[in-house]
Amino acid sequence: MEARHHLYLFVVAFVFYGQSGLAVSADQSSVVYPWPMPTFYYAKEFFYIIDTDHFDFRATNNTCNILKEAFHRYAAIILGSAAKEQQSGATNGSKSTTVGDSVTEVMVQVNTPCNDGDRPRADSDESYYISVNAAALVMANEVWGAMRGLETFSQLIYQDDMGRLLVNESEVTDKPRFGYRGILIDTSNHFISVPLLLQNLDAMELNKFNVFHWHIVDDISFPYQSEQFPNLSDKGAYNKYTHVYSKTDIIQVIEYGRLRGIRVIVEFDTPGHTLSWGKGQPDLLTKCYTGDKPNGQFGPINPIRQSTYKFLDSLFAEVGRLFPDDYIHIGGNDVNFRCWESNPEIKEFMKQMNYTAVQLEQYYFQKVLNIVRDLYTKNIVWQDAYDNGVLSAGTIYQVWKSDWQSTIARLTAAAYETILSSCWFLDNISKSNDWIKYYQCDPYDFNGSMENKKHVKGGEASLWSTYIDDTNLMTTIWPRASAVGERLWSDISVNNVTAAFPRLIENHCRMVRRGIPAEPLGPGYCIKEYKAPVSMN
Amino acid sequence: MEARHHLYLFVVAFVFYGQSGLAVSADQSSVVYPWPMPTFYYAKEFFYIIDTDHFDFRATNNTCNILKEAFHRYAAIILGSAAKEQQSGATNGSKSTTVGDSVTEVMVQVNTPCNDGDRPRADSDESYYISVNAAALVMANEVWGAMRGLETFSQLIYQDDMGRLLVNESEVTDKPRFGYRGILIDTSNHFISVPLLLQNLDAMELNKFNVFHWHIVDDISFPYQSEQFPNLSDKGAYNKYTHVYSKTDIIQVIEYGRLRGIRVIVEFDTPGHTLSWGKGQPDLLTKCYTGDKPNGQFGPINPIRQSTYKFLDSLFAEVGRLFPDDYIHIGGNDVNFRCWESNPEIKEFMKQMNYTAVQLEQYYFQKVLNIVRDLYTKNIVWQDAYDNGVLSAGTIYQVWKSDWQSTIARLTAAAYETILSSCWFLDNISKSNDWIKYYQCDPYDFNGSMENKKHVKGGEASLWSTYIDDTNLMTTIWPRASAVGERLWSDISVNNVTAAFPRLIENHCRMVRRGIPAEPLGPGYCIKEYKAPVSMN
Repeated sequence: MEARHHLYLFVVAFVFYGQSGLAVSADQSSVVYPWPMPTFYYAKEFFYIIDTDHFDFRATNNTCNILKEAFHRYAAIILGSAAKEQQSGATNGSKSTTVGDSVTEVMVQVNTPCNDGDRPRADSDESYYISVNAAALVMANEVWGAMRGLETFSQLIYQDDMGRLLVNESEVTDKPRFGYRGILIDTSNHFISVPLLLQNLDAMELNKFNVFHWHIVDDISFPYQSEQFPNLSDKGAYNKYTHVYSKTDIIQVIEYGRLRGIRVIVEFDTPGHTLSWGKGQPDLLTKCYTGDKPNGQFGPINPIRQSTYKFLDSLFAEVGRLFPDDYIHIGGNDVNFRCWESNPEIKEFMKQMNYTAVQLEQYYFQKVLNIVRDLYTKNIVWQDAYDNGVLSAGTIYQVWKSDWQSTIARLTAAAYETILSSCWFLDNISKSNDWIKYYQCDPYDFNGSMENKKHVKGGEASLWSTYIDDTNLMTTIWPRASAVGERLWSDISVNNVTAAFPRLIENHCRMVRRGIPAEPLGPGYCIKEYKAPVSMN
Repeated sequence: MEARHHLYLFVVAFVFYGQSGLAVSADQSSVVYPWPMPTFYYAKEFFYIIDTDHFDFRATNNTCNILKEAFHRYAAIILGSAAKEQQSGATNGSKSTTVGDSVTEVMVQVNTPCNDGDRPRADSDESYYISVNAAALVMANEVWGAMRGLETFSQLIYQDDMGRLLVNESEVTDKPRFGYRGILIDTSNHFISVPLLLQNLDAMELNKFNVFHWHIVDDISFPYQSEQFPNLSDKGAYNKYTHVYSKTDIIQVIEYGRLRGIRVIVEFDTPGHTLSWGKGQPDLLTKCYTGDKPNGQFGPINPIRQSTYKFLDSLFAEVGRLFPDDYIHIGGNDVNFRCWESNPEIKEFMKQMNYTAVQLEQYYFQKVLNIVRDLYTKNIVWQDAYDNGVLSAGTIYQVWKSDWQSTIARLTAAAYETILSSCWFLDNISKSNDWIKYYQCDPYDFNGSMENKKHVKGGEASLWSTYIDDTNLMTTIWPRASAVGERLWSDISVNNVTAAFPRLIENHCRMVRRGIPAEPLGPGYCIKEYKAPVSMN
């Protein structure tokens, strides 16, 4: 159990924001700040001591394994290493602060039943309430809210110079601004090992993200190990033994996420970005032609063959059994029409049907949508599909191009649900201070009525792995994605970079203390630094 | 023992360069490529099998502990995990390749005596010769050359599909282009732990760097633990217990470097960049004034007090005992004259002496040079000192500003020795492909005669740790610094980015296999990936 400390060479402004705007607290030097900022947070300079010998959580109403697992997890976080990520100059246990009784038990009240097998949903109620005074209480309507509350509660605890764990008298009322708060990881350009995917889920829980968008396959490699079509990864993965996700791996990732209230939405991007599919499924892709001869290149999935839809039907049926979320992502990114238009068989079909290439893509997606609609309540596609007229009521459009304001204005005006990624490409980085540009992007920053804006369901920080593998995945995502996390969770008024910076630093050391290798945000240190594992010759 | 593999989506051109220009080898699919490229390298598609049960090195002439330690190290590298970092499509043990006898022993012939306590020097002879045929031989004039040869020899060994370790019949003649091939690490903006400094020395040895420039203290923190002046780190370090380098730590780093033929040159940057010194040595810094009152700010070291030089004399005497290299770096970077010029005491002195601020800096450095000249054969300063007229025959000028060509032309025309850093700032990064800009910078790329150019002693890749700590130090340096390593070691003609790329990828996987977390250079994989250590909640 170690305290930790972070010194930065600037004036730390302790400011916090309530739901209705700005509130400045001038005398909060012993107050910790959760990240992301709750809707309402109040803390007195009056603290209770955590009775570490007897500390535990107690479910007062409904309970289930999900909650029990969370109790274990947060007891370990709090007792194992909880400490205030304090700023320079903060004086804990100062004379002006008075001490109350000790806290031995945190009551956790979940108002609706929870069952061991419950899964987080798009409409999970993640709101919660915390009260710490003579008694400590975390209250929520659903177990998913209780888990967000437990995370916040763990962040309220800090350590004084004598090594005691303290929690101030405080009150938190909180709920997310957006229901969809995602992180995309591309595991095709580089294979990312399962332990790292799990560690990233830990970091997501800490930052209150609730969707892991698993961009599992792409042009370059196919690490998804299919039971029905083993050739896909045998031929399409970097290595069929070491660079694949087995069924067991996938179940483990999904379960690890579920227990943290994080949905795993898998993406099988089609009909483009499928080069790696063609290695194990030879007739799937379109053969590109130069003149009247195949030129050896392959294009998008061949949309005119019966065999294509038979294959996709079987593959998605398997995927549907494995990935239990209500949503699936079916891609639709960057479809190369030139190859389709070069292929004599497809040209003939387009002529017969009087189709343009765009209409051919629509034709393809109608068939794919029919397949996945039986398996998933909703599906997500990249904005390219919308741009090409793939329109469907059960579809959510993910906007990623830079001129996102106009696209999202059109989409929401037509009552289509959308999520935003354009401003949160984590692979496009320079230094850790580029959190600022992520923080300053707001999904409501477009011309539209409040009614329209409600169709924005949230957003996603995206990590394409072109230059990312196990060595630098975590340091690239964190702490950058924390900025996105607060934008998607906290009130729209919580948008001041200067006010956020010291809290973000605090959160950075919080992550490092929990073993998450987050990059530094500037000169300074954490009392407990990250211990890099080193093997030497 | 695992083979490894790296697939990239481009055509791999197997090209290599001899001393006299370009030589293309069309049929080298089973040939490995050392990094940096040797002066002369020839390999036949005729291989020997390493007899792993009996493999060892044997010193045929002179030997010493340095060499014996290197034998242990390279035997472990070769037998523990040696493998060809092969490209996609390479076919090892193909029918066209014939097999010779097995290699059980590598004779290592060092032509001059080596002693257990020898240290690498500025004029170390690092040349070596390797011959692999019926007998395997590494020959060098000095032990330092033998170590470079052992590194290259370890890189010649690869693994076939049957798991055998192979080495082709080959010949290498090699010597460095520059004697000074350094990496700077700043341990003040963030504290870097000793295990990581050691791991970086491993990576430096692999890439044939031979100078670790330890920028040990700076404005923000003072982690050097002085025996004579313990207050310096007690007050000036981030934490006096956990964020300091003890005498033992420093001796360990120097010794680890020495055994790898790497010099450790310490920098105590003065008179500027010394804010952290002032905390533990209160009268050292200049008090800045606004009008006739001290404004609470501190500037550079006070150059007019006797106590300053008494302190520096004692401090450098201690440093001189601890850091045994012939060189010391004494900084001279960014001296803020405004504070000196605001201070009444200093103003009065300048008036008496009829000094400008520039002349005051010269006065300061003459005194510091007198101190360090008794301790070190040579000293290095940043180019700022040269710009301000600090001229001294035993001084090497480190050029770091962007208009380096004109500065280095002037310096070398005046016969001053220089080293170049301007184009190799590793903290100024975007993606891993910025190795190209590092690779394309050549220290001879300025207007000057060959006679003048000989005053360029080498160069240095610099890592300022503003946004760097233990989490991302290694991934930021590697593989970027490999590009600098080849520029500084290999012949001037080895400068083709396209030819270098596949070899750099091979070297990337070589580093990863040895446990060094080097970032990827693009989509792909290594057969043995980096295993990130993960602690989970």
